Amino acid sequence: MRWHGDSLELLDQRRLPHEESWTHYRDSASVATAIRELVVRGAPAIGVAAAYGIALAARHGEPLDAAFAVLRASRPTAVNLFWALDRMHRVARESGGDAEQLAAAAVAIDREDLVANLSMAALGASEIAAGSGVLTHCNTGALATAGHGTALGVIRTAWQQGRLARVYHTETRPWLQGSRLTAWELKREGIPAHLVADGSGAFLFGRGLVDWLIVGADRIAANGDTANKIGTATLAAAARSFGGKVMVVAPLSTIDFEMANGDAIEIEERHADELLGVSGSRHAPEDTMAFNPVFDVTPARLIDLIVTERGVARPPFTQDLAAMRELCTWKG
Amino acid sequence: MRWHGDSLELLDQRRLPHEESWTHYRDSASVATAIRELVVRGAPAIGVAAAYGIALAARHGEPLDAAFAVLRASRPTAVNLFWALDRMHRVARESGGDAEQLAAAAVAIDREDLVANLSMAALGASEIAAGSGVLTHCNTGALATAGHGTALGVIRTAWQQGRLARVYHTETRPWLQGSRLTAWELKREGIPAHLVADGSGAFLFGRGLVDWLIVGADRIAANGDTANKIGTATLAAAARSFGGKVMVVAPLSTIDFEMANGDAIEIEERHADELLGVSGSRHAPEDTMAFNPVFDVTPARLIDLIVTERGVARPPFTQDLAAMRELCTWKG
Repeated sequence: MRWHGDSLELLDQRRLPHEESWTHYRDSASVATAIRELVVRGAPAIGVAAAYGIALAARHGEPLDAAFAVLRASRPTAVNLFWALDRMHRVARESGGDAEQLAAAAVAIDREDLVANLSMAALGASEIAAGSGVLTHCNTGALATAGHGTALGVIRTAWQQGRLARVYHTETRPWLQGSRLTAWELKREGIPAHLVADGSGAFLFGRGLVDWLIVGADRIAANGDTANKIGTATLAAAARSFGGKVMVVAPLSTIDFEMANGDAIEIEERHADELLGVSGSRHAPEDTMAFNPVFDVTPARLIDLIVTERGVARPPFTQDLAAMRELCTWKG
Repeated sequence: MRWHGDSLELLDQRRLPHEESWTHYRDSASVATAIRELVVRGAPAIGVAAAYGIALAARHGEPLDAAFAVLRASRPTAVNLFWALDRMHRVARESGGDAEQLAAAAVAIDREDLVANLSMAALGASEIAAGSGVLTHCNTGALATAGHGTALGVIRTAWQQGRLARVYHTETRPWLQGSRLTAWELKREGIPAHLVADGSGAFLFGRGLVDWLIVGADRIAANGDTANKIGTATLAAAARSFGGKVMVVAPLSTIDFEMANGDAIEIEERHADELLGVSGSRHAPEDTMAFNPVFDVTPARLIDLIVTERGVARPPFTQDLAAMRELCTWKG
């Protein structure tokens, strides 16, 4: 993601790894469309992109209320989107919609996310014993954030520190964030890793090949219940059943303190076509019906650690997460 | 699968659902290749196909020892293959390699599998309460057996009996047995069902949409540990963690009484290419490494019922399975 003051340039994640295609966006509606259509995805990244969408609206004289509305409606599950928009809304109100101040606020959200990722990476890596095997799901790297990554940031840092004996990442059906994006990022980083099928968790934990499942989050309730890519809760159950541990890595902006637990988290359902084929080649018979919820909720009881930029929360998570909120200078 | 006395005709499962292509096989080596290359797959079906491979070898005057060897080496995990070949070997020895007797033995294995499937379907369906939701993984229908199916046979019968409110089936990466074959069979049967991502188990059980995970098996140890398609153990862990139950459906020929537990079951690893793309379209970056074990072992502790043609085994399974063996007229 590149900010140019009057445009936001996004790397089209739909075309990776085959093509590195950057496009300029100049208004809030097109940024909202880019979020909805997954040009940019990953909870922290869509928060940052939405903030820049508001900055663009102010820069180009759009009515700000409409800009906030269209961006809020782009995707439902990741709370970072609403967190970033709430923060921008406060700046808009306090500055009377001043374009310079809104641009500065968006840049601050962007930079803070990068700083937060580097902190989380160091904190998370320090929990991983030397010689460990790790498994990650979906894509939580530089593409999904302002830079470095959340769960993949922990893996990058742990790798640099020589802690990792084995790195596995899932395909992540249906959108193949793992095969396409995580594989692409790990290759650029020079981290040797193996792609596995999404169902491989029990095999990997059961054989002792993997010690930690390390994942990001789209929304974390006050008690630690964590919404993340579909398949996360299934892998967490496998980890718990087969002797592995589960680490969730997400900035404080991912925590929805208004939700006591994960029951009320809205789960986005996307089009059946995403499951009926891959990259234009359809493999299911005609008229096959598909059910495509793209997130699930991992209950806190299956999570061992939640790593934020302010520290490492341990079960029961409610107290540690609340304490981190108090440590946070900006209280959402 | 169609037996013509001097040839075996196989429906090429690699081409389904787009094309229904039948091919004649006339010698054991080409049947072994068809098994290895997944023209025919599914543990019971490959046992039946291998038996016909021996009948073809006898019919066309091949050296039988070589025919047994090439078929035994075709795939490692499904014990039905070895069970069928052991049974054919006994007939070969007792009959002096008589082609008529070997053909009759292969036909008997085929017919017995169909009869067994119908029994399992009735027994398994009777365990499912009216209004239940079920999830199945991989393909265990008529394509994978001599007819009707194992786990999918239970679902067919339970559907006919009006017990099922919801039927879900996974994609089953990497080979998409679910999207391609189970979807095709369910459509032909007129059973409304939804395709879901392999990682959806926790979501479906957690929301109460599914009560039972119903799967087949490639090999079951004497204690009930069950080798089946990669992802099965992960889904079973999700079922156990989120309030669902697990039913394994397999004929007695799938039970390897020589193995006390599942630790020693050989797990086939197939080529990385199966994970790097789909149907010729590659989605992972160049040089991505993949780890592609195609089975996993679900420990008996995660299984609620094992249904064979002789009855329903309950935990701890060792006694019930041993009792069923004694009931079986042919003791392998």
